[in-house]
Amino acid sequence: MKRRDLMLALGAGGLVSACGRANDTGSAPARESITWNMVTTWPKNFPGLGTAAQHLADLITRMSDGELTVRVYGAGERVPALEVFDAVSRGAAQMGHGAAYYWKGKSPATPFFTAVPFGMTASEMQAWLHVGGGMELWRELYAEFDLVPFEAGDTGTQMGGWFREPVADLEALRQLKVRMPGLGGEVLQALDVTTVNIPGSELFTSLQQGVIDAAEWVGPYNDLAFGFHKIARHYYYPGWHEPCGNLEAIVNKPAWAALPERLQAVVSAACMAAGRRMQAEMRANNQRALRSLVDEHGVTLHRFPDDILSALREATPGVLEDLVAGDAFAGRVHDAYRDFAARARDWTALGEAAILELRP
Amino acid sequence: MKRRDLMLALGAGGLVSACGRANDTGSAPARESITWNMVTTWPKNFPGLGTAAQHLADLITRMSDGELTVRVYGAGERVPALEVFDAVSRGAAQMGHGAAYYWKGKSPATPFFTAVPFGMTASEMQAWLHVGGGMELWRELYAEFDLVPFEAGDTGTQMGGWFREPVADLEALRQLKVRMPGLGGEVLQALDVTTVNIPGSELFTSLQQGVIDAAEWVGPYNDLAFGFHKIARHYYYPGWHEPCGNLEAIVNKPAWAALPERLQAVVSAACMAAGRRMQAEMRANNQRALRSLVDEHGVTLHRFPDDILSALREATPGVLEDLVAGDAFAGRVHDAYRDFAARARDWTALGEAAILELRP
Repeated sequence: MKRRDLMLALGAGGLVSACGRANDTGSAPARESITWNMVTTWPKNFPGLGTAAQHLADLITRMSDGELTVRVYGAGERVPALEVFDAVSRGAAQMGHGAAYYWKGKSPATPFFTAVPFGMTASEMQAWLHVGGGMELWRELYAEFDLVPFEAGDTGTQMGGWFREPVADLEALRQLKVRMPGLGGEVLQALDVTTVNIPGSELFTSLQQGVIDAAEWVGPYNDLAFGFHKIARHYYYPGWHEPCGNLEAIVNKPAWAALPERLQAVVSAACMAAGRRMQAEMRANNQRALRSLVDEHGVTLHRFPDDILSALREATPGVLEDLVAGDAFAGRVHDAYRDFAARARDWTALGEAAILELRP
Repeated sequence: MKRRDLMLALGAGGLVSACGRANDTGSAPARESITWNMVTTWPKNFPGLGTAAQHLADLITRMSDGELTVRVYGAGERVPALEVFDAVSRGAAQMGHGAAYYWKGKSPATPFFTAVPFGMTASEMQAWLHVGGGMELWRELYAEFDLVPFEAGDTGTQMGGWFREPVADLEALRQLKVRMPGLGGEVLQALDVTTVNIPGSELFTSLQQGVIDAAEWVGPYNDLAFGFHKIARHYYYPGWHEPCGNLEAIVNKPAWAALPERLQAVVSAACMAAGRRMQAEMRANNQRALRSLVDEHGVTLHRFPDDILSALREATPGVLEDLVAGDAFAGRVHDAYRDFAARARDWTALGEAAILELRP
């Protein structure tokens, strides 16, 4: 990449300045520096998610010694949460942080890169993405939108949601109004459960006032911070709808192409490193929060009744087939995901799951 | 860090050269470059493990644009596998790659940083290390040896081993000679099972000739490459002795202190990034190899009989207590590990394990 090309490519939205900042060896002359703006779908420093975006940005800035400085903007600061994809696609920001399933309107293939009901866990998902061909499909999909995607962390298995009253069976669930967005919501609808999509900001009041009877959010860490335990006592597991919650970082393609190779390596490895740390944080904080919800706040944990879980599991394949029907690329992604997941299941059952069953 | 200090510190073993290599922007002047040697406990490019060391080295070199170039040496090339710790400790090499439990002779605390029978899985382990205080203990332990440790990947849950004939119960197991090193071997010994420690190089012939009746190695990927299925047909799960297999990168402390901050950030993030990729590779290759062992090579999978698993599980806490007895620091590590693992177990049971049970 010649300097002139670099300047031209970054004209799309980047800032290039000849900067004379000192660096810590006290000997090497400064290189020119680039500034990227990262727009995110999370409130600034939202626990676990916004903080992961900030950590990723800091890591890139630190590893490049400021040659590539990344500034983070919370949802709504530069663009609303759900315009992150478009903003980075058109180069209004160089980088974004969110989750692929927010962009189902762009392509029905996107949820496969975040979470599928009864699908892969976080470490299975990473095996598919990084080694099993998943990233190649994801890159092919996003290339159409002038975006380069990266895997950037995982929430781990989520929880099934907060209920004002215990739910006895599927028939009882059909009498309730449940807040569950995404594919999980579609599976519930296939079973004639009434779902409503309420933004996070209105969720607490809606549940408190009985506008809805149950609400799914994330997991113990985020749910404790939200305060759901103050208005609903019954916390259901497992998070059948999201066995994992894979995050994405997206980069504007011309901005990416304008980076010298070493900075491309920095961005790419920073996503992996920040992803690993974020996943560890979510797990450590989830287990701490779970203990607190039960021991300090008297929350009652329930496993969903068997008939509900069976019905949800049986309804899922049909919902996935409807999702990809009529979209050839989404069909390819669905097939690839399903094939890898089947082999992943066999190995996990013998390996990790067999040991989990045994632990004292 | 001043340049003079940098030169002095690297005198311990590093190479500093004023290098004039071109870099890919074609505009920034070169900085001085450092070369590190990484000695490893694995044969060069050994699948999954040696390749992970190479990937880590390449990532550091690429991200730093050659300012820090890392050269990898397989076991025995510069030092034997089991002298890696000492070599990096005394500065004969700047970096090493292996697993902490190889250094049990240095401290009985080291196995807690690799794997504990019936203990934490890979993602739980990472939560403990990166967020739950584990890394702090690990750093404190290694500081005595002039080493800085990093988490650098995980094999995932291993398999229980290859048996020439099926084993019916604990009494039958007591009639066999089993190759199982490490804490797993000590738990077997506590149950009066005869264990032998045979180096990998002699393992195949020993099992073939009936010198031993059973052998544990790693998991499907490495075991298939080793060819165990040609001489033993019975493959046992789960790998109760190693629910995870955490890898380490170690850095000589003066060499670490001599790095400018940006290169410290590069090394540290490269370990996380290479670790995430390595874990994905092991999982993807394990599931592929498992399928091949069963479908193409006619291997029979067996779960260990219940009485064996119960006895192993009951014997484990005593073995761990004996291990740390008389070593105050190891006792602290044991306590910290056990407390974190108990909370991890609760959350995993409700989250990941509850969904694994349900998958079709």
